[in-house]
Amino acid sequence: MDIIDGKAISEEILEELRHDLAGSNHGRAPSVAFVRVGEDPASISYVNKKQKVAASLGIESQLHVLPVEISQEDLIKQIDLLNQDDTIDGILVQAPLPQEIDSNTIFNRVNPEKDVDGFNVVNAGRLCQEDKEGFLPCTPAGIVELLKRSNVETAGKHVVVLGRSLIVGKPAGLLMMRQHPFGNATVTICHSRTKELAKVVSLADIIIAAIGKPRFVTEDMVKPGAIIVDVGINRIEDPSRKSGYRLVGDVDFDRVAPKTSLITPVPGGVGPMTVALLMKNTIKAYRKNIV
Amino acid sequence: MDIIDGKAISEEILEELRHDLAGSNHGRAPSVAFVRVGEDPASISYVNKKQKVAASLGIESQLHVLPVEISQEDLIKQIDLLNQDDTIDGILVQAPLPQEIDSNTIFNRVNPEKDVDGFNVVNAGRLCQEDKEGFLPCTPAGIVELLKRSNVETAGKHVVVLGRSLIVGKPAGLLMMRQHPFGNATVTICHSRTKELAKVVSLADIIIAAIGKPRFVTEDMVKPGAIIVDVGINRIEDPSRKSGYRLVGDVDFDRVAPKTSLITPVPGGVGPMTVALLMKNTIKAYRKNIV
Repeated sequence: MDIIDGKAISEEILEELRHDLAGSNHGRAPSVAFVRVGEDPASISYVNKKQKVAASLGIESQLHVLPVEISQEDLIKQIDLLNQDDTIDGILVQAPLPQEIDSNTIFNRVNPEKDVDGFNVVNAGRLCQEDKEGFLPCTPAGIVELLKRSNVETAGKHVVVLGRSLIVGKPAGLLMMRQHPFGNATVTICHSRTKELAKVVSLADIIIAAIGKPRFVTEDMVKPGAIIVDVGINRIEDPSRKSGYRLVGDVDFDRVAPKTSLITPVPGGVGPMTVALLMKNTIKAYRKNIV
Repeated sequence: MDIIDGKAISEEILEELRHDLAGSNHGRAPSVAFVRVGEDPASISYVNKKQKVAASLGIESQLHVLPVEISQEDLIKQIDLLNQDDTIDGILVQAPLPQEIDSNTIFNRVNPEKDVDGFNVVNAGRLCQEDKEGFLPCTPAGIVELLKRSNVETAGKHVVVLGRSLIVGKPAGLLMMRQHPFGNATVTICHSRTKELAKVVSLADIIIAAIGKPRFVTEDMVKPGAIIVDVGINRIEDPSRKSGYRLVGDVDFDRVAPKTSLITPVPGGVGPMTVALLMKNTIKAYRKNIV
């Protein structure tokens, strides 16, 4: 069993991006605008992290913090301002948004060419069409990179995705099945309504777990030698920690890991990849915008 | 074993649409424009059929026949004219297009609100987002209606789709997995690169065959009691026929049917449903356009 070091692989990607940017001079640095609604601690921490990594690449970022009680209409106005600003290459509206706001309406308002998060309807459609001009959602794109850089052959393999969200499950499935050197897999998508889930998951050569349930994937569900990508980030109580909690994935790592050939840890697996792929998308948006 | 009568079910839908239209009066009938490039006999026959069915519902249609050597640019100009014409509710560019023309570019040029074929990138994205405002591709939407009107429960069932095309395989998979009374299935998508295909297909409670290979699905691949939807329309030689050929599906019907609980024939299964759903989309576009 080997552990996929997402942190190290993400650093490798960031280093490539740094090198790539150093070789280009378009008169100004790439720029990304973050929009955060409210003061959710996880959102604050995610956006902070993204801004720090951006700075380390020489990507300029700005943060727009809006009150939690903002109306959908006013949030749209803010996005329109950012859409119109030619000096901004990428826009990321940090999820989750307050319940009163329809997330898809907001994601679809972002100019598709600035949609570095890849959640806009046009980019979802481009993914279906396997159009390289599109922006891929960062987490699924990060999963592809993790597998690719771990020399995992996906063609003809059976990938089972747990979760059918727009953010991870569906795009991950679409990416793994596309006609592409790191696609071409047989893909099964499972979810809360799946019957005999353990039986279905045990078919997998590669498991992508994205259901948001702590340690949901257990030993009995996993074929010996399977490869596991764990997308879950769940807080569970842990009195032995100062904070009183720790992070676990959707996979019962301690018991499952010995049965696998390759597995991502939580934290340090998919998480840093999501941030690295956001940077890649931002530079792609910059190059499209600058011409 | 029962045979799903796609012809009868499509007539039922057309009757409902007739009734629906009779109750409305918006000053003008719904209208759809067909664009056909070249003289492919199958395309001629499909468009003819669609025009006839449209006429039977009181939907006005127009046919634009363009020479096979038309440039992509000129085809785009033609589509733009139809996009700009407020009296046209729906536009359908008959596939396949000549190889020199990029199909997705053409499909994506059609105004998404007139895209009664459901191939535009925005409607592909709306399908991913499970947005009811979108136009569903006619064949996958027809499959859902066939199952629904045959009282097939899909929630929690394992649906195996053979084929990953943008036109059928992918959208059929997305429809079957969505959170919807006639979705909620576990979905596996297989294709030419799938290993141990027979084993994967034999897991299916419901098989959707859309690979375009005559009688590809054989007895040994099918679990007893499975339900099969056969999307294939393949010509094979048949000297006993006047025409010298006959149509067969992607399923080896004679041998496979006895093993199933429910199966669609070819012809008379999915084919008429595609046309009925096109009419449904056209009326949806009309109602959106007329307000």
